[in-house]
Amino acid sequence: MQFSVMILGAGSATPAVNRYPSAQLLTFENECYLIDCGEGTQYRLLEHKIRPSRLRGVFISHLHGDHYFGLIGLLSSFNLGGRTEELFLIGPRGLDDIITMHFKYSHTPLHFPIQFTATDTELSYQVFENHYFTVTTIPLDHRIPCAGYLFKEKPLKRKLIKEKLSDDMPHEYLRKLKDGEDVIDEAGNVLYKCLDFTTPAPPPRSYAYCSDTRYLESIPEVIYGADLLYHEATFRDELAVQAFERYHSTATQAGIIAAKSNVKKLLIGHFSSRYKEFSGFLEDAQSVFPATEIAEEGKTFFIEHS
Amino acid sequence: MQFSVMILGAGSATPAVNRYPSAQLLTFENECYLIDCGEGTQYRLLEHKIRPSRLRGVFISHLHGDHYFGLIGLLSSFNLGGRTEELFLIGPRGLDDIITMHFKYSHTPLHFPIQFTATDTELSYQVFENHYFTVTTIPLDHRIPCAGYLFKEKPLKRKLIKEKLSDDMPHEYLRKLKDGEDVIDEAGNVLYKCLDFTTPAPPPRSYAYCSDTRYLESIPEVIYGADLLYHEATFRDELAVQAFERYHSTATQAGIIAAKSNVKKLLIGHFSSRYKEFSGFLEDAQSVFPATEIAEEGKTFFIEHS
Repeated sequence: MQFSVMILGAGSATPAVNRYPSAQLLTFENECYLIDCGEGTQYRLLEHKIRPSRLRGVFISHLHGDHYFGLIGLLSSFNLGGRTEELFLIGPRGLDDIITMHFKYSHTPLHFPIQFTATDTELSYQVFENHYFTVTTIPLDHRIPCAGYLFKEKPLKRKLIKEKLSDDMPHEYLRKLKDGEDVIDEAGNVLYKCLDFTTPAPPPRSYAYCSDTRYLESIPEVIYGADLLYHEATFRDELAVQAFERYHSTATQAGIIAAKSNVKKLLIGHFSSRYKEFSGFLEDAQSVFPATEIAEEGKTFFIEHS
Repeated sequence: MQFSVMILGAGSATPAVNRYPSAQLLTFENECYLIDCGEGTQYRLLEHKIRPSRLRGVFISHLHGDHYFGLIGLLSSFNLGGRTEELFLIGPRGLDDIITMHFKYSHTPLHFPIQFTATDTELSYQVFENHYFTVTTIPLDHRIPCAGYLFKEKPLKRKLIKEKLSDDMPHEYLRKLKDGEDVIDEAGNVLYKCLDFTTPAPPPRSYAYCSDTRYLESIPEVIYGADLLYHEATFRDELAVQAFERYHSTATQAGIIAAKSNVKKLLIGHFSSRYKEFSGFLEDAQSVFPATEIAEEGKTFFIEHS
C-alpha cells in the first residue's frame, strides 16, 4: 500500500517568488490528507492533478497564516464543486470560528459536513484514526499553540508463506493464520500452526511532521523510530539566537532531533526567505544526521517497509 | 500622471490552472491601490515586483472568496515586512470582523493602522478621496452585498500656453491663471486674462470596476462616460439563464452596459472556468460594443487623457 508525502509548499512566513507556504499531501492507499494548507494550496493540488474528492481530511498545525490561509479557499472550492462527502479537519481551537465567520459573511451554506477536532497542543494523544493509520499530536514549542502530527500505520497482518499452502485452504483458515492464530479443529488438534505457515508482519510505517518549533527535547520520545521525519529548519547556525527568539529551529537542531529520535530519514524545509540557496542547510543537518534531504517542492517521498 | 490598471487575476470562483482569482492593481502617479484581492494576490505582486510599500489601500467589492481570500495573507506579510504606514481598506461590513478574528487567533498585533470604511452597497456615494481622485461606490446586483467602484480623477487645472508667458511671470500669477482666474492689479486693471493665456483643463479620467453582478440597468447612470470600464462576463449567451440565476452577466450584457454608459473602452473578465478559450466572449461583447478587450492577466491598461 502506498504511503507517501508530497511537498506542496515548504516556504516560511515571508512570501517569496517560486516558494510556496507550508502544505503537504499525505497519501495512504487511495486516500489523501493535507498537512497544513498555506495560501494557494488548492492551486498546487490543481497543478499536480490531485482530484479534490480524494481528500479525506486536513491537519493544521497552528494558526499562523503561512500554515492555514489556503484552507478557506479550499473549502469554498469543495463546496462549489459539489462535494457532499464528509471532511475531517483537525487543528487548533479557533479554526472552526474562523471558518464559520467566513461562510456567514459569504452567505454560503456548506453542502458537506466538516468533522472538526480541536487539538490540545500541550499533549501527545491520538486525535484521529481510520482503517489504515492513527494520528497522534506532537506538542511543539512555538509562539502560539502548535502541534505536529505523527501518522502511524496500524499493525499489519502476518504474511502467508504461499508455497506451503494448498489452493483449497478455506478462507477462514487463512484469516486466522494472518491474525497470528493457529487453526485448530473441533477436537482441539492443531491443523495448521501459525508460525509454520506465516512470516512476521512488517513493522508499521510512520511519518512525523514537526512544523514550526524551537529545538525541543521532548520530540524524540513521541516520534522515536519514525521512518520519515519532516522538521522545520528556518535558519542556519549563525542565526541560532534569532531562531530561539522567533520560536524556530536551525538545520543543525533539526538534525539533532532526527538523530535523537532514531528516525530513518529527515526532511528539512521552512527555510527563511532571506536564504536564496539551500545547500548550506543540508550540510548543517547532514553534519549530525547524514540521511537528510531537502523537502523540495513538488517532490514525493515514499515511505517503504524496511 | 500615470493612471493605469494592471490585471493581476481575472478568473471566476472555481479555481483553474494558470488563472488567478480577481485582483487588479490601480496605479495613480506613484501610489498603488488593490481592487479585490483573491487568494494568492500577494504572490502576483511579488512576481510583478510591486513594492508593498507603494500600496496605499485596498478596495474589496464583496465577500465571496475569489474576491478577498488573499487579503489576510497580504496584511500578514505587510506586518512581517515591518509596515508602519496606514492602510486604507474599503469593503463590505464584516471584513473587519474577519480580519480581527484571524489576528486574534494568530496572537499577532498589527504594527500598522488599518483605516476601515464599511461600504453601503445599496447606494452610490463617495467612500474615499485622496489628493488625486475620488472613489464612488457602484451598487451591483449579486447574491450577497456587492459594490463596484468608480475611480475619478479630481478636476484638473487649466493648461498654461507657455509661448505667451514671459520667464519672469510671478508664480502667484501662474497659479491664478491655472485656477481659471484673471490676474488683476490693485487698481482693478486686468493684467492677464485667463482665457488668453491658458487652454481648458483636460477632462478628468475615470475607471469603473464592476465585479460580480447581474445585468443591471442602474449602472450606466453611475459610471456614464468613464474612460475605462471593467465589467464581469462570467458566461456566454447560451448560458444567459444560468447567468441570471447565479447573479452574473454574459459578455453581451457587459457590452450593452458599456454602450449604454458611453464609456471609451470595455474590459471583460471573470470567465467561468468551464470555458478554455475566450475569443467567443470577445466576439459577443464586440457585437454590441466594438471597443472591448479581454482583461488579460499580467496586462496593464493605461488611461490617457483624451
